[in-house]
Amino acid sequence: MHLPARRAKRADESATEMVQVVLPNDANPLGFILGGTVMHLIDIAGAIACHRHTRSLLVTAAVDDLQFLHPIKVGDLILLKARVTCTFTTSLEVQVDVYSEEILSGKRRLTSSAFLTFVAVAGNGQRIPVPQLIVETDEERRVCDDAHARRANRLQKKALMRST
Amino acid sequence: MHLPARRAKRADESATEMVQVVLPNDANPLGFILGGTVMHLIDIAGAIACHRHTRSLLVTAAVDDLQFLHPIKVGDLILLKARVTCTFTTSLEVQVDVYSEEILSGKRRLTSSAFLTFVAVAGNGQRIPVPQLIVETDEERRVCDDAHARRANRLQKKALMRST
Amino acid sequence: MHLPARRAKRADESATEMVQVVLPNDANPLGFILGGTVMHLIDIAGAIACHRHTRSLLVTAAVDDLQFLHPIKVGDLILLKARVTCTFTTSLEVQVDVYSEEILSGKRRLTSSAFLTFVAVAGNGQRIPVPQLIVETDEERRVCDDAHARRANRLQKKALMRST
Amino acid sequence: MHLPARRAKRADESATEMVQVVLPNDANPLGFILGGTVMHLIDIAGAIACHRHTRSLLVTAAVDDLQFLHPIKVGDLILLKARVTCTFTTSLEVQVDVYSEEILSGKRRLTSSAFLTFVAVAGNGQRIPVPQLIVETDEERRVCDDAHARRANRLQKKALMRST
Amino acid sequence: MHLPARRAKRADESATEMVQVVLPNDANPLGFILGGTVMHLIDIAGAIACHRHTRSLLVTAAVDDLQFLHPIKVGDLILLKARVTCTFTTSLEVQVDVYSEEILSGKRRLTSSAFLTFVAVAGNGQRIPVPQLIVETDEERRVCDDAHARRANRLQKKALMRST
Amino acid sequence: MHLPARRAKRADESATEMVQVVLPNDANPLGFILGGTVMHLIDIAGAIACHRHTRSLLVTAAVDDLQFLHPIKVGDLILLKARVTCTFTTSLEVQVDVYSEEILSGKRRLTSSAFLTFVAVAGNGQRIPVPQLIVETDEERRVCDDAHARRANRLQKKALMRST
Repeated sequence: MHLPARRAKRADESATEMVQVVLPNDANPLGFILGGTVMHLIDIAGAIACHRHTRSLLVTAAVDDLQFLHPIKVGDLILLKARVTCTFTTSLEVQVDVYSEEILSGKRRLTSSAFLTFVAVAGNGQRIPVPQLIVETDEERRVCDDAHARRANRLQKKALMRST
Repeated sequence: MHLPARRAKRADESATEMVQVVLPNDANPLGFILGGTVMHLIDIAGAIACHRHTRSLLVTAAVDDLQFLHPIKVGDLILLKARVTCTFTTSLEVQVDVYSEEILSGKRRLTSSAFLTFVAVAGNGQRIPVPQLIVETDEERRVCDDAHARRANRLQKKALMRST
Repeated sequence: MHLPARRAKRADESATEMVQVVLPNDANPLGFILGGTVMHLIDIAGAIACHRHTRSLLVTAAVDDLQFLHPIKVGDLILLKARVTCTFTTSLEVQVDVYSEEILSGKRRLTSSAFLTFVAVAGNGQRIPVPQLIVETDEERRVCDDAHARRANRLQKKALMRST
Repeated sequence: MHLPARRAKRADESATEMVQVVLPNDANPLGFILGGTVMHLIDIAGAIACHRHTRSLLVTAAVDDLQFLHPIKVGDLILLKARVTCTFTTSLEVQVDVYSEEILSGKRRLTSSAFLTFVAVAGNGQRIPVPQLIVETDEERRVCDDAHARRANRLQKKALMRST
Repeated sequence: MHLPARRAKRADESATEMVQVVLPNDANPLGFILGGTVMHLIDIAGAIACHRHTRSLLVTAAVDDLQFLHPIKVGDLILLKARVTCTFTTSLEVQVDVYSEEILSGKRRLTSSAFLTFVAVAGNGQRIPVPQLIVETDEERRVCDDAHARRANRLQKKALMRST
Repeated sequence: MHLPARRAKRADESATEMVQVVLPNDANPLGFILGGTVMHLIDIAGAIACHRHTRSLLVTAAVDDLQFLHPIKVGDLILLKARVTCTFTTSLEVQVDVYSEEILSGKRRLTSSAFLTFVAVAGNGQRIPVPQLIVETDEERRVCDDAHARRANRLQKKALMRST
């Protein structure tokens, strides 16, 4: 098996942009994209950015709360931008921003913004270490600090769920 | 057009149970269901329960943070239980619990638990009032109180996102 | 490999309920669900109930005649209820009832009722014994007797097909 | 709207042959095609032959019992041959034979044989008359006589189901 | 593993006809089939004819230029006819003609015609020899000569691409 | 209806990058992506770039010859880069380059390069004028000249096909 390069990386080395046309089957009877389809694409876009950072297999561990500000119509474009925000020992957080882009006007609007956490795993499913994220700007540092807070919050809820 | 019955309802009148076999295309190379597929099914299960409560068209407005505690394998079952937790003026919250069920052993485990918010809309996309939820037990009252807190939190974040 | 529990079971231990929203791609130009989509869902619902009874892999062996009494529209719900009716040596019969449920009115109607037969197999594809069905009521006994008649009829036709 | 030619036709004027490669998502964990996928394809093949006979929209009304004699593996071909067997006032029956064809050996085997009934409808969903089938050989006449018997049997069951 | 018959064959021994109903999800907002869906079906139809000629696994190597003369509407039929035109050492060329067939009028029109090249491979991905095509008529000889010219042209472009 | 901005544009204003994970259902039994799936994605990526240039509905008119230099494996990424090369009166040409990107190594390789032509249409299907492409560099001018040659060649073949 190919040995992945595991060096530390900057966020823009793994930044990912995905675009899709909204098809009829992705939509409800009003002609708007289903929330579930957006979530599915968010998971894929986030995973690709994390694959590019870790060069490993991945498992989705968590999705922080996400909102849908504007509906997206069949025939329009859905654009997703994913960027790694913070790395932990064997997991990492990625931010995915979702935009609608109207075919006829080119008008682009932010519709969702989500934080997802992925765990890096080997082919046998065991957790493996994640290459560090090189955090350079103050803004990047702030987002990574927030990521640590989100993670602490998540671990607390997880312990609660497991004990139920 | 058929006039929907808009009377107040108890949660068990709209409670929904969905089950699916995990197919190869829903899985990553490890043979585990994709996070995005689970999110897609959560959205559908939540929507069906809310349709049954509101008897109207719906748009997904938000998904509160969700975690994936255990992977689900190709060939196993994914079971989703959705139950309306609280109603607001033109929107409502639903809780969706996700379980894996192994085909060979019958072993069932909670893998995710999510809160989703849907907005009730007419055919023209305008928001319409939602029938009230009849809250009966202390536990139901507590979950609905929490829902109000989650909603306040969500509206605050939404205002922030829109101002960006 | 996990050793499945192979004890005798009652029908309600494996009874399965499935629900789906009818999407545009499942429909003909009239906006009605395709017969083939309904058949596909009947097979899945029946298989899940039989998996729960046998805790084994399965192969579809036969579908008794089925009728479509009412069309189901895009955007409405399709509800399937599956229940094991009778067990043979290495196969079992399951009844699947299909209902349409209108989103706006909540009106629910029986649209199809089918009997399917599944064969229990091991990972190598060999037939394996099926746990017995515990038949308790007179109605259950009558349905199981009918299943034996359906099976005899089926085996006769099968011999005929193979000799052609 | 284009006015369809509604003249009487022979069965070979609408006979339809369909072929598909079995893809991973159509298969169970044993690598065999799902019964539901076969049923879906039978419905499509039968519908195409009936479209060619009636030159109208159609709704699936019934599927007579069908059996699966041999499994079909992922990567192999599934071949369907559909042929109108008998016409009634506003409906018609079609026979669909299903064959597996192994990619490597070319070995072809009959795996299923089904009779389906479709109802011809106008764009408003109303039943419309079906062009007559020209029955020429003794064998064709025998199959059409059997179709009348199958239909009588079906109508009887349908009345029973509706009265339940 | 089953040993494939590798004898020389005539084109009509592997000729393949495929037919499909155009579904809503295959179409753009005008209700016309997507070019990409047609290309997908062309690849499958061509591959099936080549599988039948080579009785081996295959990899798509090239598609010669293809045009879309007429749009095909949702609800109409798409008909594909594939026929092997020429064999080389470990690859072969197939012609795929695409027709639209209107459901209501039965009107059939040629919409595309493409030449595809497939490489025959063993289970380990290595190229393997292809059974010879028996070319009988002058027309068949001319098409095969043209195929050799297309191949020379293709290899030249490929060398160019690889050197970029 | 929103009036699209129809001003002349540079190629980089509509340049489009798309990325996808190759899923099991997109692959043949060797685990390599199907040629048809690649073609489908090429059509979508090309269409999105052209939508962004024309801000109109589009119909695929032609695909120039394309080759597949390297197979892409399930679980790896497929990356598509589309860029408008030349505009005509009511149509335009776009180049789509396809790359594989290995998840574990990050190794990226050009696997295909295609030229597609799309026709701009209004909601009634009528052809409409296309905003001009602003060609700035010598390389861009050369590619656009080649596009004119490809178009002349294509129109000649089309006339031939229609006369058959």
